[in-house]
Amino acid sequence: MKSYSEMSKEELMQEKQSLEQAYADYQKMDLSLNMARGKPAPAQLDLANDLLTAVSADELVDEISGLDTRNYGGLDGIPEAKELIASMVDAKADQVIVFGNSSLNTMYDQVARGMLTGYCGETPWCKLPEVKWICPVPGYDRHFAVTEHFGIRMINVPMSEDGPDMDMVEELVKDPAVKGMWNVPKYSNPQGYVYSEEVTRRIANLKPAAKDFRVFWDNAYCVHHLYAEDEKRGHLLNILDLCEKAGNPDLVFEFVSTSKVSYAGGGIAGIVTSENNKKDILASMTVQTIGYDKVNQLRHARFFDNGALVDQHMMKHASILRPKFELVEDKFSKNLAGLGVGSWTKPLGGYFVTYTTLPGCATRTIQLAKEAGVVMTGAGAPFPYHKDPEDSTIRVSPSYPSLEELGQALDVFAVCVKLAAVEKLLA
Amino acid sequence: MKSYSEMSKEELMQEKQSLEQAYADYQKMDLSLNMARGKPAPAQLDLANDLLTAVSADELVDEISGLDTRNYGGLDGIPEAKELIASMVDAKADQVIVFGNSSLNTMYDQVARGMLTGYCGETPWCKLPEVKWICPVPGYDRHFAVTEHFGIRMINVPMSEDGPDMDMVEELVKDPAVKGMWNVPKYSNPQGYVYSEEVTRRIANLKPAAKDFRVFWDNAYCVHHLYAEDEKRGHLLNILDLCEKAGNPDLVFEFVSTSKVSYAGGGIAGIVTSENNKKDILASMTVQTIGYDKVNQLRHARFFDNGALVDQHMMKHASILRPKFELVEDKFSKNLAGLGVGSWTKPLGGYFVTYTTLPGCATRTIQLAKEAGVVMTGAGAPFPYHKDPEDSTIRVSPSYPSLEELGQALDVFAVCVKLAAVEKLLA
Repeated sequence: MKSYSEMSKEELMQEKQSLEQAYADYQKMDLSLNMARGKPAPAQLDLANDLLTAVSADELVDEISGLDTRNYGGLDGIPEAKELIASMVDAKADQVIVFGNSSLNTMYDQVARGMLTGYCGETPWCKLPEVKWICPVPGYDRHFAVTEHFGIRMINVPMSEDGPDMDMVEELVKDPAVKGMWNVPKYSNPQGYVYSEEVTRRIANLKPAAKDFRVFWDNAYCVHHLYAEDEKRGHLLNILDLCEKAGNPDLVFEFVSTSKVSYAGGGIAGIVTSENNKKDILASMTVQTIGYDKVNQLRHARFFDNGALVDQHMMKHASILRPKFELVEDKFSKNLAGLGVGSWTKPLGGYFVTYTTLPGCATRTIQLAKEAGVVMTGAGAPFPYHKDPEDSTIRVSPSYPSLEELGQALDVFAVCVKLAAVEKLLA
Repeated sequence: MKSYSEMSKEELMQEKQSLEQAYADYQKMDLSLNMARGKPAPAQLDLANDLLTAVSADELVDEISGLDTRNYGGLDGIPEAKELIASMVDAKADQVIVFGNSSLNTMYDQVARGMLTGYCGETPWCKLPEVKWICPVPGYDRHFAVTEHFGIRMINVPMSEDGPDMDMVEELVKDPAVKGMWNVPKYSNPQGYVYSEEVTRRIANLKPAAKDFRVFWDNAYCVHHLYAEDEKRGHLLNILDLCEKAGNPDLVFEFVSTSKVSYAGGGIAGIVTSENNKKDILASMTVQTIGYDKVNQLRHARFFDNGALVDQHMMKHASILRPKFELVEDKFSKNLAGLGVGSWTKPLGGYFVTYTTLPGCATRTIQLAKEAGVVMTGAGAPFPYHKDPEDSTIRVSPSYPSLEELGQALDVFAVCVKLAAVEKLLA
C-alpha cells in the first residue's frame, strides 16, 4: 500500500470510506479494551506469590541490625532492604533510605520538603516568588501533576532517543529559580528511551545557579528488561558515581521502586543519594514518621535474597511482557508502516511504547479509539499542563490486557490512527 | 513515714543521706533499664503472629470491591479495611480513608496539606504571616514536633482529668490565625485521661473564626483498655456525630492506627472525617500516590474480621499490659505515697502514666535516673518547644520492659524522685 502522502484526493476518499467501514464494524463488537495504564497483568503479580510467606513469625528480625521489624525504630529502613534497593541500581547500601510502598509518594514528599523546609538550609521554595522545573517531554504524567500541584512552573525540554536536549538544560539551570528536573532515564515513560552516556555525563556535570537544584532521577524501570541478552538491554551509567566525580555529590535524588517487581500496590520504595542529602531528608523524616513498614521491607529483602534474585525474577516478568511488546511492534509494522501516518518507539524494557501521529491527530485518534471501546491514556497526558504542543503523542500501555485482547485493541487502534490521518489530510 | 514537708531540716538531711546510699547501691548494679518509649513488648507483637499468614495467594481480592489488592488503584483504601478502622471508633466505613503504617505520617501530611494547598479552598498557611495551634499540655511530643517543624506557633492550654481547659480554647479560637488543635482524647498521652462528655461537646460546638480551623483528634488509644469490665473502661463520645449535630461537620480529623493493635512498625492507619474533608484530602492524595499498601490493609481486615475481633485481641494485650500498670500503681503507692513528693495518674488504658514531681524537680529526677541506668522520656518532652514551665512532668512508659525489669526501674525511679525532692527542699 502506498503512503497517504502520495495518494490523490480520490484515493484518500476511498481509503477513508473503507476505514470508516472497518471502524463501524469494530464499534458493533461492543469492545471494552484498555491500553491506558501501566499496570502489571495478574499473571505478573502471581510471580510474587511467595512474597506473602517470605517471612514467618520466628524470622522477623533484620539479620544485619538485629532490629525487630514489627516494632518501632529503623527510620531509614532495615539494612537488608537497603541492600536490595542498592542492588537494583548498582549503588551502595549506605546510599539508601527505604520508604513505603509508593515511590511516587516519596517523590511528592521530596518536592514538598523543598517547598516547606528547603534543602540543606536553603530557603523553602514556598517563600520564593517563583519556582521553575525542567520537564523533558513527553514524560510521566504523574511527575508533572506533582509539580503542577505545588504551583511550580514547568518548562518543556524535548526528548530524543538519547535523552533530553542538554543544550537547553544547561542553559536553563543558569536561572536560580530553576530548582529541579524530572527524569525517567531508563526505558523512559512513555518512549522507552535510555539516556545516553553523554547525556548522563552532562547531567552529572551541570553547574546550576541554584544550590538547591536537584535532579529527580526516577529509575522506575532500572531492572525492567524485556530480554536476557546484554546487547538487547539498555545500559545506563551510574549517575551518583558520576556526580561524585564531577564534584557534584548532592545533585541527584535517585528513586527506586519494586512496584513493578513485586506488587504494584504493596511493594517498597527507596531514595539513593549522597550522605549530605540523606541527613537532610532524615532530619525532616524523623518528624514525619517513626519509620515505614519494616515487615514488608523484610519480606522483600528475603524474597529477593537482598537483591540476588531480582534479575531472575524480572526475566519471569519479561516472559509475560515480551510477547506483548513484540505484538505491538508486529501489529504496528503490519498495519501502519510505510503509510506516512506516524512512527513509534521500539523499547527494550519498561512499560510503554510511544506512538507519534501526524501533527494534530492524537486527540482525534484517542477519541475514535474510545468510541470503539479502546481506552488509551488521554491526549496531552505526557505533557505539563496536559498540553501536547503538536497533538501527536500517544502513550501505548500493552502490559495489562491479555495477548488476545491486546491484539484486538491494537487492530482497532491502527484503524483509528489511519482514519484520523485521512481526515486530517482531507481537511 | 511522714511527709517531707513536715520534716525538720535535720530529718531531711538524714533522709538525704539514706537516699544517697540507696542510690549509690543502684549505681553499682550497672543497670540498663528503659521507661522512655511507648513501645509494645515483644510478647504483645507475638499476639499478631497470624497476621503474617492472614492472606494467602488465592485470597488477594477485596471481597466488597472486587479490587486486586496487589495492583494499583483503591486510592482511599479497600472497603474491608475501612470497616476495620470504622469499627474501632464507632464510625461508618464511608467516613474513612485508609493510609499506610503510620498515623503520625498521616497527621504530618494533613498539616502539610494545610501549609501547602490549604483546606477546602482556603489560603495555604505558608502564605500567611502567622499560624497558631492549640496544644493541650502535657501532651504528645511528636505532635508538637510536627507543628514546630512547620513553624507554627504553639499555645499551651492546661489539661485536667476532664480534658483541656475549654474556657481557654473557646477564647483562643476567636483568633483567625489559630488553625488547629492537637488532642489525644482517650487515655491521653502522657496522663491517660479521657475527655469528659462536657469537654467533647464543647469541642464539637466550637465556633472558630478561621473556616479552616481543624481539631486533630488523635484517637490513638481508642481500643486500648486495660480491663474488660465496662465500668473500668474510659468512654469517649463520638466526636464526629456531635460535630454533625452541631452544624460543624467539617471540624474534625480523627486519626486511628493499628500500631499498638497489630505491629508498631507494620500496621495501618486511617482518617475518619466528613465527606467534604475526605474529598478535599483525596484531591491532593491523588497527586501524592496511587494508593497505600492494600495487601497489608487486607491482611489486617482479615486478621481482625473487619473489626469483629479487635476487642478480643486487645484483651490479650491487656493481659500483658495490665500487670505492668498495676505494678506502677503498686510501687508508687508503696514508695512515694504520703511523702509529699508528687502525684501520679492511674489510667484505665493507653500506654503512659504521668508522674508529677514537686515544681522544679523533673529534670533532676530524670538525670538521676539516667545516671543510675534508668532511661526516662526527656524532661520537657511533653511540652511544646520542650519547655515544661513547672519542670514537674515525667512521662512513665511501662509497656516495653519485662515485669521484673519494670519493678527494678520503678524502685530506682522512686529513689530518684525522693532524692531530687529532698535536694530541692534543702536548697
